Amino acid sequence: MPHPSRIGVVGAGQLARMMIPAAIELDLPVRVLASDPGESAARIAGDVAQGSHEDEAAVRALAADCAVITFDHEHVPTRILERIEGDGLAAVRPSPAALVHAQDKLVMRRRLTALGHPCPRWWEAADRASLTGAIAEAGGRAVVKTPRGGYDGHGVRVVTSADEVGDWLDAGDLLVEEPVDFIRELSAQVARRPGGAAGTDGIRTYPVVQSTQRDGVCFEVIAPAPDLDPDRDAQIRELAARIAADLDVVGMLAVELFETRDGRVLVNELAMRPHNTGHWSMDAAVTGQFEQHLRAVADLPLGSTAPIAPQAVMVNLLGGAREDLAVGAAAAMAADPGVKVHLYGKGVRPGRKVGHVTIAGEDLADLRRRAHRAERLIVDGEDQRPAAAVTDPAATTQE
Amino acid sequence: MPHPSRIGVVGAGQLARMMIPAAIELDLPVRVLASDPGESAARIAGDVAQGSHEDEAAVRALAADCAVITFDHEHVPTRILERIEGDGLAAVRPSPAALVHAQDKLVMRRRLTALGHPCPRWWEAADRASLTGAIAEAGGRAVVKTPRGGYDGHGVRVVTSADEVGDWLDAGDLLVEEPVDFIRELSAQVARRPGGAAGTDGIRTYPVVQSTQRDGVCFEVIAPAPDLDPDRDAQIRELAARIAADLDVVGMLAVELFETRDGRVLVNELAMRPHNTGHWSMDAAVTGQFEQHLRAVADLPLGSTAPIAPQAVMVNLLGGAREDLAVGAAAAMAADPGVKVHLYGKGVRPGRKVGHVTIAGEDLADLRRRAHRAERLIVDGEDQRPAAAVTDPAATTQE
Repeated sequence: MPHPSRIGVVGAGQLARMMIPAAIELDLPVRVLASDPGESAARIAGDVAQGSHEDEAAVRALAADCAVITFDHEHVPTRILERIEGDGLAAVRPSPAALVHAQDKLVMRRRLTALGHPCPRWWEAADRASLTGAIAEAGGRAVVKTPRGGYDGHGVRVVTSADEVGDWLDAGDLLVEEPVDFIRELSAQVARRPGGAAGTDGIRTYPVVQSTQRDGVCFEVIAPAPDLDPDRDAQIRELAARIAADLDVVGMLAVELFETRDGRVLVNELAMRPHNTGHWSMDAAVTGQFEQHLRAVADLPLGSTAPIAPQAVMVNLLGGAREDLAVGAAAAMAADPGVKVHLYGKGVRPGRKVGHVTIAGEDLADLRRRAHRAERLIVDGEDQRPAAAVTDPAATTQE
Repeated sequence: MPHPSRIGVVGAGQLARMMIPAAIELDLPVRVLASDPGESAARIAGDVAQGSHEDEAAVRALAADCAVITFDHEHVPTRILERIEGDGLAAVRPSPAALVHAQDKLVMRRRLTALGHPCPRWWEAADRASLTGAIAEAGGRAVVKTPRGGYDGHGVRVVTSADEVGDWLDAGDLLVEEPVDFIRELSAQVARRPGGAAGTDGIRTYPVVQSTQRDGVCFEVIAPAPDLDPDRDAQIRELAARIAADLDVVGMLAVELFETRDGRVLVNELAMRPHNTGHWSMDAAVTGQFEQHLRAVADLPLGSTAPIAPQAVMVNLLGGAREDLAVGAAAAMAADPGVKVHLYGKGVRPGRKVGHVTIAGEDLADLRRRAHRAERLIVDGEDQRPAAAVTDPAATTQE
């Protein structure tokens, strides 16, 4: 018999891990499904089941013991979730019909376009001829994406010829997009629960944030996005809320956006789970995104998304030279008592997300300086990296 | 061989439980020693050892696998800790030599008086004659306390005759104190680590808070204490820091105080662990007291104790009529998206601490109204208890 309130989390990465403290505080029982007991969430959770997210028996066994299942990532095969939902084993939140828009970029583009939500110009390429035609229509240079399986820059190439993605052509249809001339990337988080009245406790949006990447990976987030016109902030939050409702998302939805040089905002990607661009909310909003995700999938009333300070800066800890982060974490704490350090308990590999830091306060320049200093101290053990390594977001284009 | 950084927590009540989220965020490995797998912390921790805090073999086995041990409560026999320390099994933080001042009220009074720290007038009564003499010296009415084992009003009686504590006289010496005419109770939290330079990251004090009891149990905490003169706040924080240093405390120390009608501040009790009067800091200070306690006992640099809002109100959830708190918690969340709900996963019994709520903001009267409404909704399932049940702290005396 399923537990009356247990939440099953498929996957045991850092997103599942960061749900656990919120679950403890609200006394919501959580079980994580881990492929390996050394995974980030499996190392600390009190209730761990072993199994792969691609093993239908393992996912079904988790669902059978839970009231609801949710996700650490988007990689669970849709058919497994559809059968769990069809058999009534557990509520699947977000449902496979919603989740597919975060799993398949072609499905996402078709649906958002049909709904009239702003996207870059895009084409579907089934073969070399249609791909060559799409590149030409895009102006001779295009962004080609594999619809499924991409993350953190994987599965994305900027090309001028079909030959450059010849290895992808046999695997299925490709998504082709115009290169967007953007001045920065923004991200909008929204939470939606099944019950509740829309606009009150049924759906809540966070302030729109600015996100900066390094080597294709989220590196710095500033919340709220600096110099964002309040009307623009409201417009983007309304867009994110409409997408959540249109796609019937339950849980957290992150809408990643381009702000273009000519003043438009275009949807780049969707993620239906807590997202790296929302980590700032753990320390700098009344309700962090991990608590909010659990409240949403448990169909509890949603919490306030108000920031607790005028500005917050989150910087990711991307694996560097040092394998043991504890010494650097102590150095960062000694240098700045205001820094909030989050370590994921993962093995350090170059570029891998192994933690993050957040600082909240009033003076954005000071907060950025302090957050990046803490990051350098933890990752490199020194505060020596040239400041130029912090990308000026205004100088970025999509490549 | 002991783990190089594992922290062992003796006891698995809600204080141990609330250390776990902080330990996860900082990736500090924690093992709790639980008498029963159904205890508050044992229900959610990833690493639980079974055994009583009074079983020397169990406590030693915990210490042998940890770099440091610390506590959920003060009830571990001193001799067990002395032998663990003497044998070098693990660092004991706070050390038994410090902890005894929180375990034994007579030891505490003797030491604080020798150090010149302000206490109520007090006497030591070894027999009926000395007890009768002390009551007379106190003015015919005195507060009698058993030196060990008391908590939440247990082991404390206000008497006019030795006969009223006749059942205690054979058990050992008693502490007798004058009844203090206080206008309110204050509490000062301070964290101290072994390393670090005093005044920088070696010791940090939190803003002094006001605490109100109901039936001898902490019920409401307002942080910072309303209308507390800044000089008085600084003086009390300095007192708490000096006591922590004088007694060589490592970890969190709570100094509970009386503010008297004639303008003095007297030390009432000491607790060497996170304390109920510090729960507000989890949601309303940069560094919550549970994170701070772990940083202190792990000898990591201490975090900022700055509040994130001008005021915060914490109200305890004391067991009421309802056994299942989940329905009430949802009602409280629906009524107020700003309320932070903490449930301890404990069975509900009348008057038992089963959780707390905190709200931070600017308007104290509004925050108090909202926090008490949330508490009533969760505990009773309705917002019907007369407002008079919220004690006016200015009308209290110690009985």
